[in-house]
Amino acid sequence: MPLDLDRVVSHLTSLEEAILMKLIDRCQFAHNAIVYIPGQSGFDPPESASLLELRLLQQETIDAYFGRYLVPEERPFYTNLPPPKRRVKAIDPELRIRELETINLSGRILVSYLDLLPQICRADDDGHYGSSVEHDVICLQAIARRVHYAACYVAESKYQRDPNTFQSLIERQDVEGLLEKLTRKEVENEVIKRIGYKLRGLQKASDPKNRHLIEEDVIKYYFKNWIIPLTKEGEVRYLLQRRD
Amino acid sequence: MPLDLDRVVSHLTSLEEAILMKLIDRCQFAHNAIVYIPGQSGFDPPESASLLELRLLQQETIDAYFGRYLVPEERPFYTNLPPPKRRVKAIDPELRIRELETINLSGRILVSYLDLLPQICRADDDGHYGSSVEHDVICLQAIARRVHYAACYVAESKYQRDPNTFQSLIERQDVEGLLEKLTRKEVENEVIKRIGYKLRGLQKASDPKNRHLIEEDVIKYYFKNWIIPLTKEGEVRYLLQRRD
Repeated sequence: MPLDLDRVVSHLTSLEEAILMKLIDRCQFAHNAIVYIPGQSGFDPPESASLLELRLLQQETIDAYFGRYLVPEERPFYTNLPPPKRRVKAIDPELRIRELETINLSGRILVSYLDLLPQICRADDDGHYGSSVEHDVICLQAIARRVHYAACYVAESKYQRDPNTFQSLIERQDVEGLLEKLTRKEVENEVIKRIGYKLRGLQKASDPKNRHLIEEDVIKYYFKNWIIPLTKEGEVRYLLQRRD
Repeated sequence: MPLDLDRVVSHLTSLEEAILMKLIDRCQFAHNAIVYIPGQSGFDPPESASLLELRLLQQETIDAYFGRYLVPEERPFYTNLPPPKRRVKAIDPELRIRELETINLSGRILVSYLDLLPQICRADDDGHYGSSVEHDVICLQAIARRVHYAACYVAESKYQRDPNTFQSLIERQDVEGLLEKLTRKEVENEVIKRIGYKLRGLQKASDPKNRHLIEEDVIKYYFKNWIIPLTKEGEVRYLLQRRD
Protein backbone atom coordinates (compact mmCIF):
# COMPACT_ATOMS: atom_id res chain seq x y z
CA MET A 1 0.00 0.00 0.00
CA PRO A 2 1.48 3.36 -0.98
CA LEU A 3 2.01 6.06 1.60
CA ASP A 4 -0.89 8.47 1.72
CA LEU A 5 0.65 11.90 1.07
CA ASP A 6 -2.42 13.71 2.40
CA ARG A 7 -2.03 11.94 5.71
CA VAL A 8 1.67 12.81 5.81
CA VAL A 9 1.01 16.49 5.10
CA SER A 10 -1.82 16.61 7.62
CA HIS A 11 0.47 15.21 10.31
CA LEU A 12 3.22 17.66 9.37
CA THR A 13 0.80 20.53 9.83
CA SER A 14 -0.08 19.25 13.26
CA LEU A 15 3.62 18.95 14.18
CA GLU A 16 4.17 22.54 13.09
CA GLU A 17 1.39 23.80 15.33
CA ALA A 18 2.92 21.86 18.20
CA ILE A 19 6.27 23.60 17.58
CA LEU A 20 4.63 27.03 17.66
CA MET A 21 2.81 26.32 20.92
CA LYS A 22 5.97 25.03 22.56
CA LEU A 23 8.02 28.04 21.42
CA ILE A 24 5.33 30.37 22.81
CA ASP A 25 5.61 28.50 26.11
CA ARG A 26 9.41 28.77 26.17
CA CYS A 27 9.46 32.50 25.57
CA GLN A 28 7.36 33.18 28.64
CA PHE A 29 10.76 32.94 30.33
CA ALA A 30 13.66 35.28 29.65
CA HIS A 31 16.54 34.12 27.46
CA ASN A 32 18.63 33.28 30.55
CA ALA A 33 21.87 33.02 28.57
CA ILE A 34 23.74 31.47 31.49
CA VAL A 35 21.99 28.12 31.01
CA TYR A 36 23.84 27.68 27.69
CA ILE A 37 27.31 28.32 29.12
CA PRO A 38 29.43 25.25 29.93
CA GLY A 39 30.33 24.93 33.59
CA GLN A 40 27.60 27.35 34.72
CA SER A 41 24.90 24.83 35.55
CA GLY A 42 24.99 25.47 39.28
CA PHE A 43 25.42 21.73 39.86
CA ASP A 44 27.24 20.76 43.01
CA PRO A 45 29.71 19.08 42.58
CA PRO A 46 30.33 21.17 39.42
CA GLU A 47 29.70 19.76 35.95
CA SER A 48 31.64 20.83 32.87
CA ALA A 49 28.53 20.86 30.66
CA SER A 50 25.92 23.63 30.46
CA LEU A 51 22.59 23.31 32.23
CA LEU A 52 20.87 22.70 28.88
CA GLU A 53 23.31 19.94 27.98
CA LEU A 54 22.81 18.25 31.33
CA ARG A 55 19.05 18.45 31.05
CA LEU A 56 19.02 17.18 27.47
CA LEU A 57 21.22 14.20 28.32
CA GLN A 58 19.17 13.24 31.37
CA GLN A 59 15.94 13.57 29.41
CA GLU A 60 17.18 11.54 26.47
CA THR A 61 18.44 8.85 28.83
CA ILE A 62 14.98 8.26 30.28
CA ASP A 63 13.40 8.65 26.85
CA ALA A 64 15.75 5.94 25.60
CA TYR A 65 14.58 3.58 28.39
CA PHE A 66 11.00 4.20 27.28
CA GLY A 67 11.82 3.29 23.69
CA ARG A 68 11.45 6.70 22.07
CA TYR A 69 14.32 6.25 19.65
CA LEU A 70 12.82 3.17 18.06
CA VAL A 71 10.40 5.56 16.34
CA PRO A 72 11.81 6.77 13.00
CA GLU A 73 11.11 10.48 13.49
CA GLU A 74 12.44 10.54 17.06
CA ARG A 75 16.17 11.10 16.54
CA PRO A 76 18.24 11.92 19.64
CA PHE A 77 20.70 14.77 20.22
CA TYR A 78 23.12 12.53 22.13
CA THR A 79 24.77 9.30 21.03
CA ASN A 80 25.57 6.31 23.26
CA LEU A 81 22.19 6.38 24.96
CA PRO A 82 21.14 3.24 26.87
CA PRO A 83 19.04 0.55 25.15
CA PRO A 84 15.25 0.56 25.64
CA LYS A 85 13.72 -1.26 28.60
CA ARG A 86 10.37 -1.61 26.85
CA ARG A 87 9.21 -3.83 24.05
CA VAL A 88 7.84 -1.34 21.54
CA LYS A 89 6.01 -2.53 18.49
CA ALA A 90 7.28 -0.99 15.28
CA ILE A 91 4.42 1.29 14.33
CA ASP A 92 5.31 1.94 10.74
CA PRO A 93 6.66 -0.59 8.29
CA GLU A 94 6.21 1.82 5.40
CA LEU A 95 9.73 3.22 5.38
CA ARG A 96 12.57 1.67 3.41
CA ILE A 97 15.43 2.62 5.63
CA ARG A 98 18.10 0.50 7.25
CA GLU A 99 19.90 2.80 9.63
CA LEU A 100 17.73 5.56 11.08
CA GLU A 101 20.68 7.49 12.46
CA THR A 102 21.90 8.35 8.95
CA ILE A 103 19.11 10.94 8.72
CA ASN A 104 19.88 12.43 12.15
CA LEU A 105 20.18 16.22 11.85
CA SER A 106 19.77 16.95 15.55
CA GLY A 107 23.17 18.64 15.91
CA ARG A 108 22.22 21.34 13.43
CA ILE A 109 18.71 21.58 14.81
CA LEU A 110 20.32 22.48 18.14
CA VAL A 111 22.45 25.17 16.44
CA SER A 112 19.37 26.56 14.69
CA TYR A 113 17.40 26.66 17.94
CA LEU A 114 20.12 28.45 19.88
CA ASP A 115 20.18 31.00 17.07
CA LEU A 116 16.41 31.44 17.20
CA LEU A 117 16.10 31.75 20.96
CA PRO A 118 17.42 35.32 21.52
CA GLN A 119 15.02 36.47 18.81
CA ILE A 120 11.91 35.17 20.59
CA CYS A 121 12.84 35.64 24.28
CA ARG A 122 13.33 38.77 26.36
CA ALA A 123 17.08 39.51 26.57
CA ASP A 124 17.05 39.15 30.31
CA ASP A 125 17.74 36.85 33.26
CA ASP A 126 14.68 36.03 35.36
CA GLY A 127 16.25 33.23 37.41
CA HIS A 128 13.97 30.53 35.98
CA TYR A 129 16.84 28.40 34.73
CA GLY A 130 15.30 25.01 35.37
CA SER A 131 12.07 25.92 33.58
CA SER A 132 13.95 27.43 30.65
CA VAL A 133 15.98 24.32 29.86
CA GLU A 134 12.98 22.09 30.50
CA HIS A 135 11.10 24.00 27.81
CA ASP A 136 14.17 24.05 25.58
CA VAL A 137 14.24 20.27 25.58
CA ILE A 138 10.54 20.12 24.73
CA CYS A 139 11.02 22.60 21.86
CA LEU A 140 14.09 20.81 20.52
CA GLN A 141 12.29 17.48 20.51
CA ALA A 142 9.29 19.00 18.72
CA ILE A 143 11.47 20.60 16.04
CA ALA A 144 13.52 17.44 15.56
CA ARG A 145 10.31 15.40 15.27
CA ARG A 146 9.02 17.70 12.50
CA VAL A 147 12.29 17.67 10.53
CA HIS A 148 12.89 13.93 10.78
CA TYR A 149 9.28 13.00 10.15
CA ALA A 150 9.32 14.99 6.92
CA ALA A 151 12.75 13.62 6.02
CA CYS A 152 11.43 10.07 6.16
CA TYR A 153 7.81 10.24 5.11
CA VAL A 154 7.78 13.06 2.59
CA ALA A 155 10.84 11.56 0.89
CA GLU A 156 9.31 8.10 0.79
CA SER A 157 5.99 9.32 -0.56
CA LYS A 158 7.70 11.44 -3.22
CA TYR A 159 9.77 8.42 -4.22
CA GLN A 160 6.68 6.29 -4.58
CA ARG A 161 5.11 8.83 -6.93
CA ASP A 162 8.03 8.71 -9.34
CA PRO A 163 10.26 5.74 -8.53
CA ASN A 164 12.07 5.62 -11.88
CA THR A 165 13.44 9.17 -11.78
CA PHE A 166 14.38 8.89 -8.12
CA GLN A 167 16.01 5.49 -8.59
CA SER A 168 18.28 6.78 -11.32
CA LEU A 169 19.26 9.83 -9.23
CA ILE A 170 19.96 7.57 -6.26
CA GLU A 171 22.07 5.19 -8.32
CA ARG A 172 24.18 8.11 -9.51
CA GLN A 173 24.25 9.45 -5.89
CA ASP A 174 23.28 12.75 -7.47
CA VAL A 175 22.74 15.01 -4.45
CA GLU A 176 22.15 18.16 -6.52
CA GLY A 177 19.70 16.37 -8.76
CA LEU A 178 17.81 14.97 -5.79
CA LEU A 179 17.61 18.38 -4.12
CA GLU A 180 16.27 19.91 -7.31
CA LYS A 181 13.72 17.13 -7.76
CA LEU A 182 12.56 17.52 -4.14
CA THR A 183 12.25 21.29 -4.24
CA ARG A 184 8.90 22.88 -4.95
CA LYS A 185 9.21 26.59 -4.23
CA GLU A 186 5.46 27.23 -4.30
CA VAL A 187 4.88 24.55 -1.64
CA GLU A 188 7.66 26.00 0.52
CA ASN A 189 6.14 29.47 0.27
CA GLU A 190 2.80 27.98 1.23
CA VAL A 191 4.31 26.36 4.33
CA ILE A 192 5.91 29.65 5.41
CA LYS A 193 2.68 31.56 4.87
CA ARG A 194 0.76 28.94 6.84
CA ILE A 195 3.22 29.21 9.75
CA GLY A 196 2.64 32.95 9.96
CA TYR A 197 -1.11 32.49 9.84
CA LYS A 198 -1.06 29.81 12.57
CA LEU A 199 1.13 31.91 14.84
CA ARG A 200 -1.22 34.86 14.47
CA GLY A 201 -4.16 32.61 15.31
CA LEU A 202 -2.50 31.08 18.34
CA GLN A 203 -1.48 34.42 19.78
CA LYS A 204 -4.67 36.31 19.01
CA ALA A 205 -6.43 35.38 22.24
CA SER A 206 -3.37 36.32 24.31
CA ASP A 207 -3.05 39.67 26.00
CA PRO A 208 0.54 40.97 25.61
CA LYS A 209 0.22 42.15 29.22
CA ASN A 210 0.10 38.51 30.34
CA ARG A 211 2.02 36.65 27.66
CA HIS A 212 5.23 37.42 25.86
CA LEU A 213 4.46 37.13 22.13
CA ILE A 214 6.57 36.00 19.17
CA GLU A 215 6.99 38.09 16.06
CA GLU A 216 5.63 36.48 12.92
CA ASP A 217 8.64 37.41 10.77
CA VAL A 218 11.08 35.72 13.14
CA ILE A 219 9.27 32.41 12.86
CA LYS A 220 8.82 32.69 9.11
CA TYR A 221 12.55 33.36 8.77
CA TYR A 222 13.31 30.35 10.95
CA PHE A 223 11.21 28.01 8.83
CA LYS A 224 12.51 29.45 5.56
CA ASN A 225 16.20 29.42 6.45
CA TRP A 226 16.50 26.50 8.84
CA ILE A 227 13.59 24.07 8.99
CA ILE A 228 12.93 23.76 5.26
CA PRO A 229 16.59 23.39 4.17
CA LEU A 230 17.26 20.92 7.00
CA THR A 231 14.19 18.94 6.00
CA LYS A 232 15.34 18.72 2.40
CA GLU A 233 18.78 17.60 3.50
CA GLY A 234 17.09 14.91 5.58
CA GLU A 235 15.04 13.81 2.56
CA VAL A 236 18.21 13.52 0.46
CA ARG A 237 19.91 11.48 3.19
CA TYR A 238 16.89 9.18 3.39
CA LEU A 239 16.81 8.64 -0.36
CA LEU A 240 20.56 8.06 -0.72
CA GLN A 241 20.35 5.03 1.54
CA ARG A 242 16.85 3.89 0.61
CA ARG A 243 16.63 0.13 0.06
CA ASP A 244 13.75 -1.96 -1.24
CA MET B 1 6.42 45.08 49.88
CA PRO B 2 2.92 43.66 49.36
CA LEU B 3 2.31 41.06 46.66
CA ASP B 4 1.03 42.64 43.47
CA LEU B 5 -2.31 40.92 42.80
CA ASP B 6 -2.35 42.08 39.18
CA ARG B 7 0.96 40.36 38.57
CA VAL B 8 -0.33 37.18 40.24
CA VAL B 9 -3.51 37.16 38.13
CA SER B 10 -1.58 37.89 34.96
CA HIS B 11 0.72 34.92 35.62
CA LEU B 12 -2.28 32.70 36.40
CA THR B 13 -3.79 33.58 33.05
CA SER B 14 -0.57 32.63 31.34
CA LEU B 15 -0.45 29.31 33.21
CA GLU B 16 -4.01 28.57 32.10
CA GLU B 17 -3.15 29.13 28.46
CA ALA B 18 -0.18 26.81 28.88
CA ILE B 19 -2.52 24.09 30.24
CA LEU B 20 -4.84 24.44 27.26
CA MET B 21 -2.00 24.17 24.74
CA LYS B 22 -0.60 21.11 26.46
CA LEU B 23 -4.00 19.40 26.60
CA ILE B 24 -4.48 20.09 22.88
CA ASP B 25 -1.10 18.47 22.27
CA ARG B 26 -1.96 15.41 24.36
CA CYS B 27 -5.24 14.75 22.60
CA GLN B 28 -3.54 14.45 19.23
CA PHE B 29 -2.96 10.90 20.46
CA ALA B 30 -5.72 8.44 21.25
CA HIS B 31 -6.66 7.74 24.86
CA ASN B 32 -4.53 4.56 24.87
CA ALA B 33 -6.10 3.25 28.06
CA ILE B 34 -3.48 0.53 28.45
CA VAL B 35 -0.84 3.01 29.58
CA TYR B 36 -2.82 3.60 32.79
CA ILE B 37 -3.09 -0.08 33.73
CA PRO B 38 -0.62 -1.41 36.31
CA GLY B 39 1.68 -4.12 34.99
CA GLN B 40 0.96 -3.26 31.33
CA SER B 41 3.92 -0.97 30.69
CA GLY B 42 5.64 -3.34 28.29
CA PHE B 43 8.83 -3.04 30.35
CA ASP B 44 11.14 -6.00 30.23
CA PRO B 45 11.75 -7.23 32.91
CA PRO B 46 8.11 -6.47 33.85
CA GLU B 47 7.25 -3.64 36.23
CA SER B 48 4.21 -3.66 38.50
CA ALA B 49 3.43 0.02 37.85
CA SER B 50 1.62 1.44 34.83
CA LEU B 51 3.54 3.11 32.01
CA LEU B 52 2.32 6.53 33.19
CA GLU B 53 3.47 5.85 36.75
CA LEU B 54 6.91 4.76 35.53
CA ARG B 55 7.26 7.81 33.32
CA LEU B 56 6.12 10.20 36.04
CA LEU B 57 8.55 8.77 38.58
CA GLN B 58 11.50 8.88 36.17
CA GLN B 59 10.64 12.43 35.16
CA GLU B 60 10.24 13.65 38.72
CA THR B 61 13.51 12.03 39.68
CA ILE B 62 15.48 14.04 37.14
CA ASP B 63 13.40 17.13 37.89
CA ALA B 64 14.34 16.72 41.55
CA TYR B 65 18.05 16.64 40.62
CA PHE B 66 17.55 19.92 38.76
CA GLY B 67 15.96 21.55 41.79
CA ARG B 68 12.40 21.87 40.51
CA TYR B 69 10.78 21.13 43.86
CA LEU B 70 12.49 24.02 45.61
CA VAL B 71 10.05 26.27 43.73
CA PRO B 72 6.84 26.76 45.77
CA GLU B 73 4.38 26.07 42.94
CA GLU B 74 6.22 22.96 41.71
CA ARG B 75 4.80 20.22 43.92
CA PRO B 76 5.64 16.63 42.97
CA PHE B 77 3.34 13.64 42.48
CA TYR B 78 5.78 11.26 44.15
CA THR B 79 7.33 11.43 47.60
CA ASN B 80 10.86 10.30 48.53
CA LEU B 81 12.43 11.94 45.51
CA PRO B 82 16.22 12.47 45.60
CA PRO B 83 17.67 15.78 46.85
CA PRO B 84 18.64 18.46 44.29
CA LYS B 85 22.11 18.45 42.77
CA ARG B 86 21.95 22.16 41.95
CA ARG B 87 22.22 25.22 44.10
CA VAL B 88 19.02 27.08 43.24
CA LYS B 89 18.45 30.57 44.56
CA ALA B 90 15.09 31.02 46.26
CA ILE B 91 13.25 33.18 43.75
CA ASP B 92 10.43 34.37 45.92
CA PRO B 93 10.67 35.36 49.58
CA GLU B 94 7.12 36.75 49.51
CA LEU B 95 5.39 33.67 50.84
CA ARG B 96 4.91 32.98 54.54
CA ILE B 97 4.99 29.22 54.46
CA ARG B 98 7.13 26.76 56.36
CA GLU B 99 6.45 23.40 54.79
CA LEU B 100 5.57 23.55 51.10
CA GLU B 101 4.34 19.96 50.97
CA THR B 102 1.34 20.78 53.19
CA ILE B 103 -0.31 22.42 50.16
CA ASN B 104 0.43 19.48 47.85
CA LEU B 105 -2.75 18.44 46.02
CA SER B 106 -1.01 16.45 43.28
CA GLY B 107 -2.73 13.18 44.16
CA ARG B 108 -6.15 14.63 43.45
CA ILE B 109 -4.88 16.51 40.42
CA LEU B 110 -3.87 13.13 39.00
CA VAL B 111 -7.36 11.75 39.69
CA SER B 112 -8.94 14.79 38.02
CA TYR B 113 -6.71 14.43 34.97
CA LEU B 114 -7.43 10.74 34.50
CA ASP B 115 -11.12 11.64 34.66
CA LEU B 116 -10.71 14.39 32.06
CA LEU B 117 -8.63 12.39 29.59
CA PRO B 118 -11.31 10.13 28.03
CA GLN B 119 -13.39 13.25 27.44
CA ILE B 120 -10.75 14.98 25.34
CA CYS B 121 -9.07 12.05 23.55
CA ARG B 122 -10.35 9.68 20.90
CA ALA B 123 -11.49 6.43 22.61
CA ASP B 124 -8.96 4.41 20.71
CA ASP B 125 -5.51 2.78 20.80
CA ASP B 126 -3.06 4.18 18.25
CA GLY B 127 0.05 2.51 19.64
CA HIS B 128 1.71 5.80 20.61
CA TYR B 129 2.09 4.84 24.25
CA GLY B 130 5.41 6.54 24.90
CA SER B 131 4.22 9.86 23.46
CA SER B 132 0.94 9.66 25.36
CA VAL B 133 2.52 9.34 28.79
CA GLU B 134 5.19 11.88 27.91
CA HIS B 135 2.44 14.39 27.19
CA ASP B 136 0.49 13.26 30.25
CA VAL B 137 3.43 14.19 32.46
CA ILE B 138 3.71 17.60 30.79
CA CYS B 139 -0.03 18.23 31.27
CA LEU B 140 0.00 17.06 34.88
CA GLN B 141 2.91 19.32 35.72
CA ALA B 142 1.21 22.29 34.04
CA ILE B 143 -2.04 21.71 35.94
CA ALA B 144 -0.25 21.20 39.26
CA ARG B 145 1.74 24.40 38.66
CA ARG B 146 -1.47 26.39 38.12
CA VAL B 147 -3.22 24.97 41.19
CA HIS B 148 -0.27 25.32 43.55
CA TYR B 149 0.74 28.75 42.27
CA ALA B 150 -2.77 30.04 42.96
CA ALA B 151 -2.87 28.24 46.31
CA CYS B 152 0.23 30.11 47.47
CA TYR B 153 0.13 33.48 45.79
CA VAL B 154 -3.58 34.21 45.58
CA ALA B 155 -4.00 33.17 49.21
CA GLU B 156 -1.07 35.32 50.34
CA SER B 157 -2.24 38.37 48.41
CA LYS B 158 -5.80 38.00 49.71
CA TYR B 159 -4.43 37.72 53.23
CA GLN B 160 -2.41 40.91 52.78
CA ARG B 161 -5.52 42.82 51.75
CA ASP B 162 -7.41 41.95 54.92
CA PRO B 163 -5.01 40.53 57.48
CA ASN B 164 -7.25 41.04 60.51
CA THR B 165 -10.20 39.01 59.26
CA PHE B 166 -7.95 36.26 57.93
CA GLN B 167 -5.89 36.14 61.11
CA SER B 168 -8.95 35.58 63.26
CA LEU B 169 -10.25 32.84 60.92
CA ILE B 170 -6.82 31.18 60.98
CA GLU B 171 -6.59 31.33 64.77
CA ARG B 172 -9.96 29.62 65.02
CA GLN B 173 -8.83 27.15 62.28
CA ASP B 174 -12.18 27.94 60.68
CA VAL B 175 -12.05 26.06 57.36
CA GLU B 176 -15.62 26.88 56.37
CA GLY B 177 -15.14 30.53 57.18
CA LEU B 178 -11.90 30.67 55.18
CA LEU B 179 -13.53 28.99 52.18
CA GLU B 180 -16.40 31.46 52.30
CA LYS B 181 -14.04 34.42 52.62
CA LEU B 182 -11.96 33.16 49.66
CA THR B 183 -14.91 32.49 47.37
CA ARG B 184 -15.97 35.09 44.84
CA LYS B 185 -18.48 33.48 42.52
CA GLU B 186 -18.33 36.27 39.93
CA VAL B 187 -14.54 35.90 39.62
CA GLU B 188 -14.87 32.13 39.25
CA ASN B 189 -17.46 32.54 36.51
CA GLU B 190 -15.12 34.99 34.82
CA VAL B 191 -12.26 32.46 34.92
CA ILE B 192 -14.47 29.76 33.39
CA LYS B 193 -15.70 32.09 30.66
CA ARG B 194 -12.11 33.13 29.90
CA ILE B 195 -11.03 29.48 29.59
CA GLY B 196 -13.70 28.85 26.98
CA TYR B 197 -12.75 31.97 25.07
CA LYS B 198 -9.03 31.06 25.10
CA LEU B 199 -9.70 27.52 23.94
CA ARG B 200 -11.80 28.79 21.04
CA GLY B 201 -9.00 31.18 20.10
CA LEU B 202 -6.28 28.55 20.28
CA GLN B 203 -8.22 26.08 18.17
CA LYS B 204 -9.58 28.53 15.62
CA ALA B 205 -6.63 28.28 13.27
CA SER B 206 -6.65 24.46 13.41
CA ASP B 207 -8.31 22.38 10.75
CA PRO B 208 -10.21 19.48 12.40
CA LYS B 209 -8.91 17.35 9.52
CA ASN B 210 -5.37 17.76 10.89
CA ARG B 211 -5.87 18.28 14.60
CA HIS B 212 -8.14 16.60 17.09
CA LEU B 213 -9.99 19.40 18.88
CA ILE B 214 -11.29 19.75 22.44
CA GLU B 215 -14.87 20.68 23.26
CA GLU B 216 -15.24 23.92 25.11
CA ASP B 217 -17.80 22.58 27.59
CA VAL B 218 -15.51 19.76 28.69
CA ILE B 219 -12.75 22.19 29.66
CA LYS B 220 -15.15 24.60 31.32
CA TYR B 221 -16.55 21.72 33.37
CA TYR B 222 -13.02 20.65 34.33
CA PHE B 223 -12.11 24.11 35.60
CA LYS B 224 -15.43 24.59 37.38
CA ASN B 225 -15.54 21.22 39.11
CA TRP B 226 -11.89 20.37 39.63
CA ILE B 227 -9.38 23.18 39.19
CA ILE B 228 -11.25 25.90 41.05
CA PRO B 229 -12.28 23.77 44.07
CA LEU B 230 -8.78 22.26 44.31
CA THR B 231 -7.27 25.74 44.16
CA LYS B 232 -9.48 26.97 46.97
CA GLU B 233 -8.57 23.95 49.07
CA GLY B 234 -4.90 24.77 48.43
CA GLU B 235 -5.50 28.37 49.53
CA VAL B 236 -7.10 27.19 52.75
CA ARG B 237 -4.19 24.84 53.43
CA TYR B 238 -1.74 27.66 52.82
CA LEU B 239 -3.54 29.99 55.18
CA LEU B 240 -4.01 27.44 57.95
CA GLN B 241 -0.26 27.08 58.31
CA ARG B 242 0.72 30.64 57.40
CA ARG B 243 3.35 32.14 59.73
CA ASP B 244 4.71 35.66 59.93
